[in-house]
Amino acid sequence: MTAQGPVSPLTPKPTLDRVASPADLRALPDRDLGTLAHELRREVIEVVSQTGGHLGSSLGVVELTVALHAVFNTPHDKLIWDVGHQCYPHKILTGRRDRMLTLRQAGGLSGFTKRSESEHDPFGAAHSSTSISAALGFALAREMGQPVGDTIAVIGDGAITAGMAYEAMNHAGHLGTRMFVILNDNDMSIAPPVGALQTYLNTLGRNGPLATLKALAEGIEDHLPAPLREGARRARELVGDRPGGPTLFEKLGFAYLGPVNGHDMPALLAVLRGARAHATGPVLIHVVTKKGYGYAPAEGADDKYHGVAKFDIATGQQFKTPANAPNYTAVFGKTLTDEAARDPRIVAITAAMPGGTGLDAMQTRFPGRVFDVGIAEQHGVTFAAGLAAGGMRPFCAIYSSFLQRGYDQIVHDVALQNLPVRFAIDRAGLVGQDGATHAGAFDVMFLANLPNMTVMAAGDEADLAHMIATAARHDEGPIALRYPRGEGIGVPMPDRGEALPIGRGRILREGSDAAILSFGAHLSEALAAAAILESQGVSVTVADARFAKPLDAELLEQLHRHHRTLVTVEQGSTGGFGGLVLHHLAAAGLLEKGRAIRTLTLPDRFIDQASPAQMYAWAGLAASDIATAVLQAASPFRTASVVNLR
Amino acid sequence: MTAQGPVSPLTPKPTLDRVASPADLRALPDRDLGTLAHELRREVIEVVSQTGGHLGSSLGVVELTVALHAVFNTPHDKLIWDVGHQCYPHKILTGRRDRMLTLRQAGGLSGFTKRSESEHDPFGAAHSSTSISAALGFALAREMGQPVGDTIAVIGDGAITAGMAYEAMNHAGHLGTRMFVILNDNDMSIAPPVGALQTYLNTLGRNGPLATLKALAEGIEDHLPAPLREGARRARELVGDRPGGPTLFEKLGFAYLGPVNGHDMPALLAVLRGARAHATGPVLIHVVTKKGYGYAPAEGADDKYHGVAKFDIATGQQFKTPANAPNYTAVFGKTLTDEAARDPRIVAITAAMPGGTGLDAMQTRFPGRVFDVGIAEQHGVTFAAGLAAGGMRPFCAIYSSFLQRGYDQIVHDVALQNLPVRFAIDRAGLVGQDGATHAGAFDVMFLANLPNMTVMAAGDEADLAHMIATAARHDEGPIALRYPRGEGIGVPMPDRGEALPIGRGRILREGSDAAILSFGAHLSEALAAAAILESQGVSVTVADARFAKPLDAELLEQLHRHHRTLVTVEQGSTGGFGGLVLHHLAAAGLLEKGRAIRTLTLPDRFIDQASPAQMYAWAGLAASDIATAVLQAASPFRTASVVNLR
Repeated sequence: MTAQGPVSPLTPKPTLDRVASPADLRALPDRDLGTLAHELRREVIEVVSQTGGHLGSSLGVVELTVALHAVFNTPHDKLIWDVGHQCYPHKILTGRRDRMLTLRQAGGLSGFTKRSESEHDPFGAAHSSTSISAALGFALAREMGQPVGDTIAVIGDGAITAGMAYEAMNHAGHLGTRMFVILNDNDMSIAPPVGALQTYLNTLGRNGPLATLKALAEGIEDHLPAPLREGARRARELVGDRPGGPTLFEKLGFAYLGPVNGHDMPALLAVLRGARAHATGPVLIHVVTKKGYGYAPAEGADDKYHGVAKFDIATGQQFKTPANAPNYTAVFGKTLTDEAARDPRIVAITAAMPGGTGLDAMQTRFPGRVFDVGIAEQHGVTFAAGLAAGGMRPFCAIYSSFLQRGYDQIVHDVALQNLPVRFAIDRAGLVGQDGATHAGAFDVMFLANLPNMTVMAAGDEADLAHMIATAARHDEGPIALRYPRGEGIGVPMPDRGEALPIGRGRILREGSDAAILSFGAHLSEALAAAAILESQGVSVTVADARFAKPLDAELLEQLHRHHRTLVTVEQGSTGGFGGLVLHHLAAAGLLEKGRAIRTLTLPDRFIDQASPAQMYAWAGLAASDIATAVLQAASPFRTASVVNLR
Repeated sequence: MTAQGPVSPLTPKPTLDRVASPADLRALPDRDLGTLAHELRREVIEVVSQTGGHLGSSLGVVELTVALHAVFNTPHDKLIWDVGHQCYPHKILTGRRDRMLTLRQAGGLSGFTKRSESEHDPFGAAHSSTSISAALGFALAREMGQPVGDTIAVIGDGAITAGMAYEAMNHAGHLGTRMFVILNDNDMSIAPPVGALQTYLNTLGRNGPLATLKALAEGIEDHLPAPLREGARRARELVGDRPGGPTLFEKLGFAYLGPVNGHDMPALLAVLRGARAHATGPVLIHVVTKKGYGYAPAEGADDKYHGVAKFDIATGQQFKTPANAPNYTAVFGKTLTDEAARDPRIVAITAAMPGGTGLDAMQTRFPGRVFDVGIAEQHGVTFAAGLAAGGMRPFCAIYSSFLQRGYDQIVHDVALQNLPVRFAIDRAGLVGQDGATHAGAFDVMFLANLPNMTVMAAGDEADLAHMIATAARHDEGPIALRYPRGEGIGVPMPDRGEALPIGRGRILREGSDAAILSFGAHLSEALAAAAILESQGVSVTVADARFAKPLDAELLEQLHRHHRTLVTVEQGSTGGFGGLVLHHLAAAGLLEKGRAIRTLTLPDRFIDQASPAQMYAWAGLAASDIATAVLQAASPFRTASVVNLR
């Protein structure tokens, strides 16, 4: 590692310095792997103290990461980290150590696994519960002659509750193809995991010594080091004898090994080697870890330092910049709690994100009226539809990109039945450090083209409060409101949200040359663009559509009639708000007027992590881009408008 | 029922005639319920012999339907049929007997449960595995004071393998709320069910007498008729003693009752009454039925008469109209099998629909290369992505409306990673008798606005063969091809499909006044519209875009330049092909030309079942509608074009 040596503030790590790749790691004697893990953990802490990021989950899998690369022949063997936010130790060991300080920054390393970044990331992730499906796909490719070795999915106890993971295990058990699933059981996903499966996992041998294991077969035990061998036999007998009988995983066709202490390197190596030597079909290895392990401030924190800002290593104190305005998530949490206090029919649904969605505020005050369904968006949406059909007023609060998980349920159970489910869609638009996988780029497109849906977007944090009030009172059918990650713009907040008229926008400033029709939180950029244009002598109207569906046809037609140029702006893909504006103008016969129209949307590519402002600049949606689009659209008419007015 | 008496060809049914509603049924003594079931089964057979429809699944649940309405207080108690295609006996018993001969026809009864049709359908369905989520939603609404009674989900052994059902059970087990799940285990969904769970279900007491049951509690046994009581005790001991220990359902927090013979009325009544009297939390009642039960031709058929045409009751002979042209599904099956014979890297994925997708042809020839993942679209898509990442060329064949189930996986695992998964999308557009739930209305919208996707639609059955060849060779990223249900139009078929140039359309006829740009199988209607217009003196160009993404910009701009009127036509929603055409024209600064443009899409409402031609007429997409749209769009320019040419 000398050539790419660690960046200065990092402490010396003599063993880690000898490991530029997993091959180097595999050349080390077993006795050095504990030391390697120790240094690796320290490196992760030092890096994340400077970059911020997902700390707790990475600290929990340090030994497991070392053991997996020691036992399996990566990258020929395909190691697939579910979600991927626990991959920092993996990145350090797989040739990316020298770039770790660029983590989650523009031009730097992704905070997740990513195929384009390394051959050691055979299948990228960020959304949960995809790893078993992907690993099974690789395994079958190998069975059909492709140059693929063993396939290993590492999945957390939260992620394994998702239906998708169950579908994959059901299929893998049916096929009987050799593959490995490592269940990383830390009893602690982002929020404490939910569901009957978790209760069940807690019964699996938690009362016995963690370092023991049930052997895959008698043969494995013979390959274990003598001290473990006896323990393994005893554990296997215990498992066989215990009232629980076969595990749920065995019922699904997996061989079950475990639980094993995920911080005990010799135990991990023994179990993984035994499994690798003897597996003939799918094997589930149940590894118990502690999130945040080995760093006291993380172990002691409620969220185990799941996601942190830069921090002081000695104290664990995080350096957070004070907010200038309330953030949208907090406005949602507070406003909905207030509405719920007035209306006992309001309930809320989250898919394992009570904190991220702001529903923890309502959970504290009305614990029986917030339902955390676990990582189960499909069920969550239809469960909300059932609540609505049963007479309740459910708010289904799911991030934009995760709502994609419940799309058929939105179409088939909600929209088609016209049930009044309220979708509160946080993380709409580009989200910053989490990058492309978490971008809320598509929700307006995939919702506003559905019959019966009403779709709103908040132009500022005050409008979010009004839209929550609007949704609460809207019993006529499904309604969605979207809002971005992060802080508002500092507008005065109303004491209480007021119901908005459905399908009506608002005009914020009036001009005569061009109209900018904004949908959602890019309103501030639209206003900034207007200011730029005004400074160049172009008089601009700015309106906030508020609704993508139903469109404010009167407002739209008025803007179209009175301006030579109409530009729509949104934080979303084509086919969404701008698409619906164009469809409306076409159907109304207004395109014949020959106005210049531009629909500014997210571009036709995925945008990597950076600050949101940088990402929007890359997307061509900075205020200056909007101004330029207006000028360029107007250029055929320059003599008549822009130039004249200069 | 005399006022609404049965339609003439139906045989007399004195007991059924006394049952106009479930309340009447509950007034009958138990001893009459067997007779009622017998007559009800006969009624179902007679009706479906005249209407066609889903026969086998309805025949399997006749006794169960009677028993559920006898024991539960419907509609105050919410009875939710999963999928809903087994609901014919339920419809007959719930006030819809007199309309049964209108089943699946224009203006008639839906072939599925439907909220707007009856208060006895509290939650409609058609896609599978939604019932437990919905029933749990109703149960929680009851717990929070809404006027809802017990909630009962009836779900098949195929549907329960879906991840969504597992998510719902996991949540229900966690909450511990009283609710009932009836597992209708006929070991036979549309295709034989797949997966480890099925293997497991087969071990659950199949060796013991079916009429026995494990009691929910000792108390239940005391309420059973004496002959059953002893059997129940024995079964409960057997279950407790058997090596399997607690069932998978018990591990998820459900009380498990069963298995019980679903054609044994006294046993069903005893178990359901016992469960109703004593349940405090979620209860799973495992009922074993035979699909097609009680009608020899159905019982003897491989598919148990899952979906049938009209038929002769005595012989079971179905009356099928001979096809005029190959149907798209068969073309897909044959062409893909041919491609697979030449390319060992081609594999196929189906989600429990090998027959419906046409993959049974490939399955017969290359059984190891067709993967039936069960009802598991989420897993299926990511599994396909894993296969692609592993070097294979996967065709993921999922109906348009079911592909909605795997949407996040398409975005996050396929498009974002730019993996060459081939999506073969059957049932695109309106599908006829299955109605709105099965309409493939949204796939172009939700796919073509994603970065990296290529999206094709077949204008005819020959183009489908070319598009399969195109997709097989397209390793650059994901590619989708869509095609409708039913027969092609009889164009000559090529011996072998040829790869099409990506992003290039074709011109079918040239004119000078207006251009119709068609995307997909409405091409024949576009041509018919052109013929109508020609007869009125309007000269029309017709082009087939073939690709919604990438758009053939050159073709589009040429059509736009040389015609005063441009009309797009597609079998899909707004935001799809027409939306992308408008976005392109706006971005290219071409809307300033002031051409008349119309985007003909499916309308902003869901369209009920009828013949596809009727549904498209309701949708405003008949050939005459297209011609009218062209004329109306052109009307401001009549002096210049249409009128002059008359």
